[in-house]
Amino acid sequence: MTNATTAKTPCYLEDLSIGQRFVSANHALDEAQVIAFARQFDPQPFHLDHAAAAKSLFGGLAASGWHVASITMRLIVGDSAPFAGGVIGAGVELSWPRPTRPGDVLHVDTEVIEITPSRSKPDRGIVTVRSETRNQADEVVQVMTSRLVVPSRISGRASQSQAPGAADLRGC
Amino acid sequence: MTNATTAKTPCYLEDLSIGQRFVSANHALDEAQVIAFARQFDPQPFHLDHAAAAKSLFGGLAASGWHVASITMRLIVGDSAPFAGGVIGAGVELSWPRPTRPGDVLHVDTEVIEITPSRSKPDRGIVTVRSETRNQADEVVQVMTSRLVVPSRISGRASQSQAPGAADLRGC
Repeated sequence: MTNATTAKTPCYLEDLSIGQRFVSANHALDEAQVIAFARQFDPQPFHLDHAAAAKSLFGGLAASGWHVASITMRLIVGDSAPFAGGVIGAGVELSWPRPTRPGDVLHVDTEVIEITPSRSKPDRGIVTVRSETRNQADEVVQVMTSRLVVPSRISGRASQSQAPGAADLRGC
Repeated sequence: MTNATTAKTPCYLEDLSIGQRFVSANHALDEAQVIAFARQFDPQPFHLDHAAAAKSLFGGLAASGWHVASITMRLIVGDSAPFAGGVIGAGVELSWPRPTRPGDVLHVDTEVIEITPSRSKPDRGIVTVRSETRNQADEVVQVMTSRLVVPSRISGRASQSQAPGAADLRGC
């Protein structure tokens, strides 16, 4: 549960290596957040109401999987994105091995599992990362495998598309 | 762009067939929604600021992919979920073939592509659906393939876990 807020420069494609890890800060989830998200985006009884949730497959009030995914994104982006150009997903796979509950304190462990420079576009590549969202008991509540577009150092675009204050970005 | 609000009973596993389609209502996305979601869950410049977005890979302000996924869930759930027991995802694959912009009017076309009764649990099965989120020009902005847990009619749990007002559910 490291709070990874150390200021670092962002990672370009050449800076990344297989097995490299990023640990997010924590996010404390409460019932008000669970219900507010569900009302807006996933208004099903097991995300809104204790009694209905107790009778459902979830066995109690549970956060929407899309809420967990959105919190995960927030934690990966952090104070500023760890990758040059930001965190831009080309595609994602998600699973939710167990429910996320009000009261859970979540963090995200991300590992680089594949790096594929683009054949046609030398200014970028696809970096595949596996992000495990874990609760306070270190149980995995979501596994997300993302293919991210990451610029290479030769990219003129990369320097243009960085967030303001890029010198403060954590990551590499 | 059919507005599929016709009241129907929810689908159990036995009611579903390969190729069956569900069309959602529409959702009009505006800049305030894009920025509000991004501030909360994906605060990257290309989701927050026109000038920064113009210089990014997106070439202009774009909704977070997690926002598009969350709106898609809202549209699939509709007034009440089309599947008995609700829309419960075991796993999901997502891709975003093109950006979603403020001003877009989104709807979701969902098709049943696989039905797998559980071998160990006869009260349920996994139904794989492909949901295309389309804009007002009928361009696909997101493809989501979801493995959903759907109860069978023999499930006692199924009748317990339905939403209140199940008689009004659309779907089958």
